[in-house]
Amino acid sequence: MNANIIRTARTIINVTDLDAAKDFYVNALGFIETENDGEHLYLRGLEEYHHHSLVLKKSSQKGVQALGFKVYSKADLETLAAYFENINCPVKWFNKGDQYALGEAIRVMDPHNIPLEFYYEMETVESYLRRYDKYKGARVQRIDHFNAMVPEVESVHNFFINELGFRCSEYTVTKDNKMWASWMYRKPTVHDLALTNGHGPRLHHFAYFLSDPTSVLNICDVLASLGFSASIERGPGRHGVSNAFFLYLKDPDGNRIELYTGDYYTGDPDFKPLKWDFDDPHRQTLWGHPAPDSWFEEASAFLNVHTGEPVTTKDSVGVQKKPNYAKY
Amino acid sequence: MNANIIRTARTIINVTDLDAAKDFYVNALGFIETENDGEHLYLRGLEEYHHHSLVLKKSSQKGVQALGFKVYSKADLETLAAYFENINCPVKWFNKGDQYALGEAIRVMDPHNIPLEFYYEMETVESYLRRYDKYKGARVQRIDHFNAMVPEVESVHNFFINELGFRCSEYTVTKDNKMWASWMYRKPTVHDLALTNGHGPRLHHFAYFLSDPTSVLNICDVLASLGFSASIERGPGRHGVSNAFFLYLKDPDGNRIELYTGDYYTGDPDFKPLKWDFDDPHRQTLWGHPAPDSWFEEASAFLNVHTGEPVTTKDSVGVQKKPNYAKY
Amino acid sequence: MNANIIRTARTIINVTDLDAAKDFYVNALGFIETENDGEHLYLRGLEEYHHHSLVLKKSSQKGVQALGFKVYSKADLETLAAYFENINCPVKWFNKGDQYALGEAIRVMDPHNIPLEFYYEMETVESYLRRYDKYKGARVQRIDHFNAMVPEVESVHNFFINELGFRCSEYTVTKDNKMWASWMYRKPTVHDLALTNGHGPRLHHFAYFLSDPTSVLNICDVLASLGFSASIERGPGRHGVSNAFFLYLKDPDGNRIELYTGDYYTGDPDFKPLKWDFDDPHRQTLWGHPAPDSWFEEASAFLNVHTGEPVTTKDSVGVQKKPNYAKY
Amino acid sequence: MNANIIRTARTIINVTDLDAAKDFYVNALGFIETENDGEHLYLRGLEEYHHHSLVLKKSSQKGVQALGFKVYSKADLETLAAYFENINCPVKWFNKGDQYALGEAIRVMDPHNIPLEFYYEMETVESYLRRYDKYKGARVQRIDHFNAMVPEVESVHNFFINELGFRCSEYTVTKDNKMWASWMYRKPTVHDLALTNGHGPRLHHFAYFLSDPTSVLNICDVLASLGFSASIERGPGRHGVSNAFFLYLKDPDGNRIELYTGDYYTGDPDFKPLKWDFDDPHRQTLWGHPAPDSWFEEASAFLNVHTGEPVTTKDSVGVQKKPNYAKY
Repeated sequence: MNANIIRTARTIINVTDLDAAKDFYVNALGFIETENDGEHLYLRGLEEYHHHSLVLKKSSQKGVQALGFKVYSKADLETLAAYFENINCPVKWFNKGDQYALGEAIRVMDPHNIPLEFYYEMETVESYLRRYDKYKGARVQRIDHFNAMVPEVESVHNFFINELGFRCSEYTVTKDNKMWASWMYRKPTVHDLALTNGHGPRLHHFAYFLSDPTSVLNICDVLASLGFSASIERGPGRHGVSNAFFLYLKDPDGNRIELYTGDYYTGDPDFKPLKWDFDDPHRQTLWGHPAPDSWFEEASAFLNVHTGEPVTTKDSVGVQKKPNYAKY
Repeated sequence: MNANIIRTARTIINVTDLDAAKDFYVNALGFIETENDGEHLYLRGLEEYHHHSLVLKKSSQKGVQALGFKVYSKADLETLAAYFENINCPVKWFNKGDQYALGEAIRVMDPHNIPLEFYYEMETVESYLRRYDKYKGARVQRIDHFNAMVPEVESVHNFFINELGFRCSEYTVTKDNKMWASWMYRKPTVHDLALTNGHGPRLHHFAYFLSDPTSVLNICDVLASLGFSASIERGPGRHGVSNAFFLYLKDPDGNRIELYTGDYYTGDPDFKPLKWDFDDPHRQTLWGHPAPDSWFEEASAFLNVHTGEPVTTKDSVGVQKKPNYAKY
Repeated sequence: MNANIIRTARTIINVTDLDAAKDFYVNALGFIETENDGEHLYLRGLEEYHHHSLVLKKSSQKGVQALGFKVYSKADLETLAAYFENINCPVKWFNKGDQYALGEAIRVMDPHNIPLEFYYEMETVESYLRRYDKYKGARVQRIDHFNAMVPEVESVHNFFINELGFRCSEYTVTKDNKMWASWMYRKPTVHDLALTNGHGPRLHHFAYFLSDPTSVLNICDVLASLGFSASIERGPGRHGVSNAFFLYLKDPDGNRIELYTGDYYTGDPDFKPLKWDFDDPHRQTLWGHPAPDSWFEEASAFLNVHTGEPVTTKDSVGVQKKPNYAKY
Repeated sequence: MNANIIRTARTIINVTDLDAAKDFYVNALGFIETENDGEHLYLRGLEEYHHHSLVLKKSSQKGVQALGFKVYSKADLETLAAYFENINCPVKWFNKGDQYALGEAIRVMDPHNIPLEFYYEMETVESYLRRYDKYKGARVQRIDHFNAMVPEVESVHNFFINELGFRCSEYTVTKDNKMWASWMYRKPTVHDLALTNGHGPRLHHFAYFLSDPTSVLNICDVLASLGFSASIERGPGRHGVSNAFFLYLKDPDGNRIELYTGDYYTGDPDFKPLKWDFDDPHRQTLWGHPAPDSWFEEASAFLNVHTGEPVTTKDSVGVQKKPNYAKY
């Protein structure tokens, strides 16, 4: 399959209370609200000049509608559609305008039941990169990646690497040499899509890039001041993996968002993936407090792109669930 | 004279346009507006729990009404009043409430025609130290010091050191051993009152302490975004003197405010003043661009506390006006 | 008792391995090594111009020899000595030179068995405040305070407030109105000596001031890179109490050191202590992971200034040991 | 021409004093010294896992030997060689090993007399990304771009855009609609090669990416402490163009290096170049002091890849030399 997938582009998530979501994402985190029609909140980061990178849709059914990737052109979209139909993954087409501010798009359940979206065109708006008067909260710069929790990492990894043309930047293996996690990319950063072992498929988190570490500290202070302390699930700390200085938050519906900085360049053809041992304590946390249990257990449901229903999930079998160190 | 002067406490400045002043100090710099009666703007820093540390009074007559210092008690106020009367500096008394939110106070023209105010009591309000949702712009923490430009530094220095009990942290001398500048303190920081050689007496600037260097950078970005680039007169850079990481701004009426961070502790009795040579290029600017001419020439008029008229000023005579290095 | 105690000035601690201590304090944390005679390591912060603020003495007997405070003059030392003798706390005198680089000093076990030292004179050395080429690791600026764990906080608090002239900046009370912790100061910052409820008397930690939050993050990265991850016990995070952005480390002998920034000014006579409820989750941690159990249980032994033996300790009785919130 | 040029990859510069160069680049700026054979200094940034991105070669002839770009494969190298030969730009071939640590390479004088190098292979070494104990000075992360000063921007711009497949992120035009500057990229950042109007062709500067703004401040402090204040030519400040938070330094031979942070993502096909008016004061400096005259006048000679001699340069004709604003 030869389609040019460019990058992680937008997340579409259902939320039960749009006002609560706005309070969290806009008032606290400082996302820019491009539009709000009372049913959908269209949000973007400060640097982004496309209409949105996050759609929060009001719904009584929680869950993630799709992980959206931008492709290079209409031809790439057609290549992808043909590929998926060919492997018996029915494709759902959207014409330009079917989705607000979006051009033609397809949605599909991939072979491992992850809802994917691809499109090549979205309306553009003003970038607020130089509008520092609008920087607040986490000073969210731009969407960066998705992290999916799946019961069997290696086959999903193989699918994205071998079929969709992703490259691997880092990966983790357990003592018995099973792949426990994988970080894969299309744009030359550490990841567009990461995979973590666990009950799934579910969305572990979606992540935004911040331009410096002080923005991570600032949002902690602001969240605490606004009564959102409990939304801080993990961090701040630094992962060995990806070198990320990170903060993990739970939104009012329990969806996890990562705010991070500290990426590196992966665009050279001779770049070699970095292998980590699962029980290397520096892997998950170069420094910082242990991840709480919720971090290994909780994730957001994926919704079937055809039915809107949560997909069936299962436990990972025969794989170590958490690292073997007291302070992980 | 034995009165316990605690610290620099408030600046009272006339401004010609209260809305423009608010736009600059509150909307851009992020001062907290305690009250605004349409004639006065009462402002404070994030940490401050007293009603204000800056009063901007609407007036067609520009200038600085007084440099306000906090004293320990009523007894200290009386000691100061008696002292000034005794040296033929008539004292103007204010009863509690004569000035909004303030207790008893005196104002006096000191022997070198600098308008001083002393008081021991001001209404208190909530400190926003832990209200990080209110941190914006320069995240102004608290008032720190005044800097007066005077035509003959040494005698003013001697008055504050010998009569009012200030201590000297750093000072600058010219090649012919004339004192060119002096940094003096009561609270254990680098300064409550600094003196700079030049046409005066005038107020060179008043200064606020910021809690970290990134706040200095942030306000530069915000000022530029809000159309206030021209208000940035000098910096950011680091002074050798005081180790300050500084930024000098001109408000819409041309009054200069310094935002800085990087102070140090001066509270030990064996602390020795640091002497600088005027032509040492590291003195004024450890690094950073040269100060523009305006920095050596422009300052705010002091107003006579009795008449409200600008005080007579004169040039400094026989003293080098600017440093002798191309890149100073 | 009317002696003028200026501030927290030096900690004297026994360590079992001087090389390991140097590796931690000098190579990792970036303390300046003033001198090292093979038996003692004399260390100071970047800003400090006194010979040292930390003495690490090689000894097979772990423990804290004394908490050193600087007083204003010889007269103050004599006043303190007379006071302690009068309340039956025998005073041990040191002549100038008896202790390296130090002038006259006294040591005494206070009424609650805390080993205190007072002195007014120490040799001076160069301040490295402007030597940024020497800034590394945590960029440690200056000593700030001690924190003692004591079984009954209120009586110790009363002794320091009523007898030694400390002031209280913040304090914590339990539901049944028992004082659980107190922050007390002489210099106008949040604390020179804090008290925490627990098995004691023991030294909970000694603390150094850093000039900005990024120094806290930097030392985490450096510690992890140098193999000292396990020395990070708690943080980074922000206390509600004192507004400190903090990091707690254990040195190779298990002594706890706090690195922090984010202090505020407490020097006005009308400053009111801030009261916190023990179970207010924002008190201990405005944000950040819960303190581990070790933080409530482990502390360093105090050594008797006369015998060199560890002092007898006891449990706190009838007082809640930890906060009642899951995520404290 | 269809070759896949990946990114700016290495600068090769002659310097007259290798020890002085090492003192500046390694001891002050904190570059990692991969190797030093007494004739060449091979340097890299903290993140870089290739052998070097900067070669300083000892020579009595100052100047820039070549601007090195990495290409995807040997085939791309051959495509480029054929293309240049075809337009009468003779190609100089290097076999693997002819240049230390480098694979096959070509060098060529492009049609505007800029010395270019292309290669697809370099030895790899350890990345120090996670070795925070080695972070010092400017904490230089990775090479980012070149900036060439040329007498006629538009034709050079057209060559790189139309022939070599670069894209334009931002550009500046004068009032009479002449292109004054252009920022062009291959990797999805603001630039790999920028062009500035002026006497040339010469190398205006080469630039390294830093991971945060505090690293820019830190290197200013360190340079001042080590006696390198005079090496700071311009900044810190923020460009409107590219949103860069920048610092420009002159090395001991007068070569200019930019340290900067604050880039943004340009990788989408619908990304539109941003057009700036030359006299827009926010273009060059969103905030910060005016650029000194040296910044418009001084640059490093390019050396002919065949003869080693400095290339002939000429003035730009009929183009405004500096912006028309007092404070530019």
